[in-house]
Amino acid sequence: MTTATSRSAVPARAGRKRRDASTEQALLLATDNLLTEKGNIDFSLAEVGARAGLSTALVQYYFGSKHGLLAALLEWSSSRYVSQINGLLAMELSAPEKLQIHLRALVKTYLKTPYIDRLLHHLISSSDDAEAQRISDFYVKRVVEFYRHLIDQGVREGHFRPVDPLHLYFILLGTADHLAARRRLLASALGAADLDMDFVGVFSAALNDMMLNGLRKI
Amino acid sequence: MTTATSRSAVPARAGRKRRDASTEQALLLATDNLLTEKGNIDFSLAEVGARAGLSTALVQYYFGSKHGLLAALLEWSSSRYVSQINGLLAMELSAPEKLQIHLRALVKTYLKTPYIDRLLHHLISSSDDAEAQRISDFYVKRVVEFYRHLIDQGVREGHFRPVDPLHLYFILLGTADHLAARRRLLASALGAADLDMDFVGVFSAALNDMMLNGLRKI
Repeated sequence: MTTATSRSAVPARAGRKRRDASTEQALLLATDNLLTEKGNIDFSLAEVGARAGLSTALVQYYFGSKHGLLAALLEWSSSRYVSQINGLLAMELSAPEKLQIHLRALVKTYLKTPYIDRLLHHLISSSDDAEAQRISDFYVKRVVEFYRHLIDQGVREGHFRPVDPLHLYFILLGTADHLAARRRLLASALGAADLDMDFVGVFSAALNDMMLNGLRKI
Repeated sequence: MTTATSRSAVPARAGRKRRDASTEQALLLATDNLLTEKGNIDFSLAEVGARAGLSTALVQYYFGSKHGLLAALLEWSSSRYVSQINGLLAMELSAPEKLQIHLRALVKTYLKTPYIDRLLHHLISSSDDAEAQRISDFYVKRVVEFYRHLIDQGVREGHFRPVDPLHLYFILLGTADHLAARRRLLASALGAADLDMDFVGVFSAALNDMMLNGLRKI
């Protein structure tokens, strides 16, 4: 339990030696492309190799298995908001300012990698209990704890009313995932030209207003 | 375009004759079970028949094709909140009251049939343009228009500030879908016993507070 296995989805770089960062990057990018294109994870390591112009053996050498590759992809695709959460916790900003910065990163992350939520839940449901717990602690519990910190700080500052951080998690992650996964389909279905990238900026701002207002102490 | 085909996902009961409502219901329930159990729509009409204890031919007779079956299932599983939207539009209630009633129905619908959003988007993406448009008009545009009505009414009453109904759509449908699709997985991952059905009532109330507050005129 205390030593992370090589297929752990939680960052554990120890033991990864004699590796070329640009090769690893190329393989992750190829996987990212495949996932975005297919909308599901039904692809082979051979497809990833072919897409990157590299051999299947190399994919296996770098990531061990498809599970290892997907775990590394989750780490890579969520790095923006995971590292930002760590940074925000330590910053001298008000709770509303932290929320605003976080929401922009969250929406950007989900739009850049619209498969991220599906990937997270695939890894949790396909891992053994200990590994599932590690992934969940790193990608779910950490975010819930960040929301707890944010709400507590906001309440102390007199900005927010007390809200269950788990409720905030469902609302924000659900919204980001829906926006990312359904945007294109809904744009064509609704005949809305304004569901393009401009929509992202406008929507982030609206979500921020809604949440700031929603959390506001009455 | 003006005549609905038999495979239309939009309710069009004309032409469905000599049918037994309880048989149709049994087949829909079997499909509902399969979808909930599998978490995806990779099943055959034979599996539906077997699950219902009826022949595959009967599934074909009632629904024409898998597409027809899925379209009927969407109609069946979303009937609670679709008919409620129509009712609420005509009711003499304030906008906050309408919102509260709608949110409870929305959360209940998604928890009872956690596959509903995936089913909707599968039908939109797998239909021809005209059919996709009909489905979207019935299940997406109608909801967006309901939110437009609700916001307009709330603004007139002095309760709400003007908000884009499309933004509200992404927030509410995203939240409901995430709650439904991820609840069990997240409950075990977070070790949270309180993500059970009690959570539903508590969460509906919290979502309502958050949205009422979020929409409130400042």
